[in-house]
Amino acid sequence: MTRTKIASLLSQYELGQEVLVKGWVRSFRNNQFIQLNDGSTIKNIQAVIEFENWNENELKRITTGAALAIKGTVVESTGAGQAIEIQVKELDILGDANPEEVAKTVMQPKRHSLEYLREQAHLRFRTNVFGAVFRIRHAVSYAIHQFFNDRGFYYLHTPIITGSDAEGAGEMFRVSTLDPKNPPLNEQGEIDWSEDFFGKQVNLTVSGQLEAELGALALGQVYTFGPTFRAENSNTARHLAEFWMIEPEVAFNDLEDNMNLTEEFLKHICNYVLTNCKDDLEFLNEREKNEQKQKPQNERNELTLAERLEFVVANSFERITYTKAIELLQDSKPFKKKQFKYPVEWGTDLQSEHERYLVEKHFKKPVIITDYPASFKAFYMRQNEDGKTVAAMDVLFPGIGEIVGGSQREERLDVLKKKCADFNIPEEEIWWYLDTRRFGSVPHSGFGLGFERMVMFVTGMTNIRDVIPFPRTPKNCEF
Amino acid sequence: MTRTKIASLLSQYELGQEVLVKGWVRSFRNNQFIQLNDGSTIKNIQAVIEFENWNENELKRITTGAALAIKGTVVESTGAGQAIEIQVKELDILGDANPEEVAKTVMQPKRHSLEYLREQAHLRFRTNVFGAVFRIRHAVSYAIHQFFNDRGFYYLHTPIITGSDAEGAGEMFRVSTLDPKNPPLNEQGEIDWSEDFFGKQVNLTVSGQLEAELGALALGQVYTFGPTFRAENSNTARHLAEFWMIEPEVAFNDLEDNMNLTEEFLKHICNYVLTNCKDDLEFLNEREKNEQKQKPQNERNELTLAERLEFVVANSFERITYTKAIELLQDSKPFKKKQFKYPVEWGTDLQSEHERYLVEKHFKKPVIITDYPASFKAFYMRQNEDGKTVAAMDVLFPGIGEIVGGSQREERLDVLKKKCADFNIPEEEIWWYLDTRRFGSVPHSGFGLGFERMVMFVTGMTNIRDVIPFPRTPKNCEF
Repeated sequence: MTRTKIASLLSQYELGQEVLVKGWVRSFRNNQFIQLNDGSTIKNIQAVIEFENWNENELKRITTGAALAIKGTVVESTGAGQAIEIQVKELDILGDANPEEVAKTVMQPKRHSLEYLREQAHLRFRTNVFGAVFRIRHAVSYAIHQFFNDRGFYYLHTPIITGSDAEGAGEMFRVSTLDPKNPPLNEQGEIDWSEDFFGKQVNLTVSGQLEAELGALALGQVYTFGPTFRAENSNTARHLAEFWMIEPEVAFNDLEDNMNLTEEFLKHICNYVLTNCKDDLEFLNEREKNEQKQKPQNERNELTLAERLEFVVANSFERITYTKAIELLQDSKPFKKKQFKYPVEWGTDLQSEHERYLVEKHFKKPVIITDYPASFKAFYMRQNEDGKTVAAMDVLFPGIGEIVGGSQREERLDVLKKKCADFNIPEEEIWWYLDTRRFGSVPHSGFGLGFERMVMFVTGMTNIRDVIPFPRTPKNCEF
Repeated sequence: MTRTKIASLLSQYELGQEVLVKGWVRSFRNNQFIQLNDGSTIKNIQAVIEFENWNENELKRITTGAALAIKGTVVESTGAGQAIEIQVKELDILGDANPEEVAKTVMQPKRHSLEYLREQAHLRFRTNVFGAVFRIRHAVSYAIHQFFNDRGFYYLHTPIITGSDAEGAGEMFRVSTLDPKNPPLNEQGEIDWSEDFFGKQVNLTVSGQLEAELGALALGQVYTFGPTFRAENSNTARHLAEFWMIEPEVAFNDLEDNMNLTEEFLKHICNYVLTNCKDDLEFLNEREKNEQKQKPQNERNELTLAERLEFVVANSFERITYTKAIELLQDSKPFKKKQFKYPVEWGTDLQSEHERYLVEKHFKKPVIITDYPASFKAFYMRQNEDGKTVAAMDVLFPGIGEIVGGSQREERLDVLKKKCADFNIPEEEIWWYLDTRRFGSVPHSGFGLGFERMVMFVTGMTNIRDVIPFPRTPKNCEF
C-alpha cells in the first residue's frame, strides 16, 4: 500500500477509503486521539484508536515525537476543526521518542522562546512555527525562479570563492588551505599567497553583481540566487554572516525599467505566497496577532501579516527622488518638531527614522527612492546629468526598511574609469569588467534582494535567524 | 516603442509589422546584412540596410561585437536559413567595438579552442557554444526546481560555512578572518580559534546531506541545491574546487523508492532539455558531430548527443547489486582475456573500466549498482542484513560514469553509533545528527547529483570547466 501524504489526504479524500499515513506524533490524548504530522502541511491528521483493542505496552510508546505508520479508514470527524479522521486498523511504531528526553527539547508541546528554538535548530523544523516558515521559504524560492524563468531570464551561478573585492560591499572571509600556523613566507617576509590553493589570496563573495553583468551583456537577462557573505561583527536581528541574495541584471534596461521589474517581482512573490501558502500564512498571521496583543497599543502593527502582503500586491509603489525625499522630510511635522535624531539635509544619508516616516506615515505604502548623491553609492552606478547624483534606487518596505537596492550601471567606459580612480579600484583588478564597456557597451540595470529579508517580510518573523535553517553569526556556527 | 526580444520575434511575427530589436552584431556582410544576437536565442535576426542611404562613417561602426538598436519592418527573407528579416528604418549604435581589439578576443568570428575561450570567460558568453551551454544550464536548474516543487519537496538552504567535517567527503577549505601572518596563539602555542569570527575553526561545506536529513525528518521531503567545495589538487576535466550539488532527502523512502525517485528525476531533466532547448541542443548536437568526425572511428560516440538524451528517457535503468556486477564482470570477455587493468573480485572497488563495460557494452543503458561493501562507503549508509554490505546506490551513465550516488540512511541509533566509532567520528561532533535517531527515527533515503556532471551530459561538453561560468580549479580563481 502506498503512503498518502497528509496534505494530499486533507485536500482530496473519499469517506470509507483505506489509507496508509506515516508521520510524527504531535500529541496523544485520552489513549485515543493521535495528532499525526508528516511535514507536508501544518495540519495534523487525527487518527483514532480503540484503546481496548491495543496492547498496553504499545500504547505507552505512542508519545510526542514518536514516528508511526498508520493504516485505517477515512471517516467523518465528529470533533471540531477537522472534516475527517482515520479509524486506525493497523499501527506500527517506526521510531520511539523517550518522553523524558523529549521534555528537554523544543518538541515538547508548549510555548518555547525563539532563542531556545534556535539552540535546537536541528529539531525546530518539527514545530508549527518553523514548519510554516521553512515551507514558505521554499515557496518564495520557487516563486523567484518561476518569475525569472517565465520572463526569459537565465539563472547564472556566479562564483562563491573570488579573487576580486572590487564590489567593496563589506568585510570579507578569507579562504585558504595554507598551514594556518606556519604559512609559507616570501623573501619580503610576507605570506606567499602564490603557494595557496588558488595561487593568490581569495575570499568569499559579497555579491555576484559584477559577474552577473558579464552574463547580461551577452545573454540579455540573467539572475543570480546564491549565498553571499559579510565578515561583519553585527549581532543584530537583521544581519547574518551568510545569507542568500538574488541579483537580476538586464541589458538595455534603464532605471525606470528596473523599477518596473522590481515592483512586478516583489508583487509576484507576495501574491505567490498568498495563493500557495494559505494554511501556513494563516497560522503565522494568528501567531503574530497573539504576539501583538502582548505589546502596548502604540507598538502594534497597523496591519496584520496577511494584510501587509495584500497591501504590497494592491498598491503602486511610490517613486520619488532622494532630493524630493529630503524636501518632504524637511516639510514634515517630526522635522519641524525636532523629533528626528539625525539631520535632514541634502548630502546626508537617510536614516531608518526618515525612511520609516516616508513609508509608514507619509505615503503609507512601499516607496522607491531614486537618484542618490553619488558619494553614498558604489562606483558602478550610472552618473546622472547633474554630475552630483547617480541612477540608484532603494525600495523601502513598511516595517522592514530597505529590501531592495539597485541601479542603472555606468556603461560609459571613460566615466567608469574615472569612478574607479575616485574609488581607488585598480583597473587591472577589474579589467574583465571594464572589457564589457569596450565591446558593445549598452545601458543596463539590475538590483539585489536580500532573500532572508524577503522571507522575514512574508512570514512576519522579526529575527533574521529565524528564517534561515542554520544561521551563521559572530561566534555562532553550529550544526 | 517596446523592444522585442529576438526569440519572441522569431516564434511569433506578422509580416509588415514594425519592431525594435536590440543586440550585438555577430557579423556584417556586404555593407548590407547585419546578423544581430540578443542572447534570448542562439538564432540571429538578419537586419538588412540599404547602404546607399547610410552615412559611411556610421556604416564603419557596424562591426562584430558592436551593440545596436534597430527599428524596422518585418519582411519575408529571400535568403536561406531564415523565414524573416528586418528592413532597417532606424539604426542606433549603442556601443562601439573596435575591430582591432575584437580581433584579440573570442568574439572574433572564427573557431577558437575551448582553452582560449576559458581564458576569456567574461566574453565567452557571447559565443554560440557558450550561449547554448549557459541557456541549457539554466534550463536544467529550472527543471530541477520544478521537479521537486511539483512533488511537494521543500528547497532547504543548508549552510555553506560549517564547523562540521563529519561527512568526510574530502579535503576542505578553511574560512577565517584571523590575521593570517600573526594569528593569536593559546597557552599551548596553538592557534586560538576561539578568537576567530565564529569562535572556532570552520570550513566550506563538502555536502549538505547531514543537514538535509534534519529537514527531511520533520518536513518529510527536502532538497538542497547549492555550492559545495573540495580542496583537492585534481587538475582533471571532471573536477572543480567549487561546484553545485543537488541533494534530495526523503523520510520513509527505502532504497527502492530512492532508485525510483532518481530514475524519474534524471529522466525529467533529459526530457525537459529535449522539449525546451531545441535550438541550443540542435546546435550542440551538430557541433559534437563535427568534432567526432575528427576522431578515429573507434573513439567516436555510438550515439549523438540528442540520441543519448532520448536514450535515457526511453530506457529503464538496469538495477543490479555490486555482488552481481562482480559476477558479470568475472564472466565477461575482457576479464577472461585479461584486458582489465584493475582486479575484479568481491571487496575491491569498481574502476571506471569496469563501470564502462557494464554500462556501455553489457547493458547498453544507465545502470544502478546497489549494495556495495560497507568499507567503500560513508558511515551513514544503512547496514544490510548480511552485515557486509550497505544500502548504497551509484547511478552510472554512458560516457560519463557515476552521475548520482545515494543510499538509504542508517536510522538505527545503536548501529549508527557503532559506525561512528568505526569511522572515528566523535559523537559529540554530530550530536544533532544522532538526535534525529533518538526522536522518532524513520527509514529515509537520499542521493546527490553533481550539477555540472549533469550539465556535461546534456550539453555534450567534455570538460567540466566549460559548463560553469567561472571555474575554480587549483591555481585558478579568475574573474
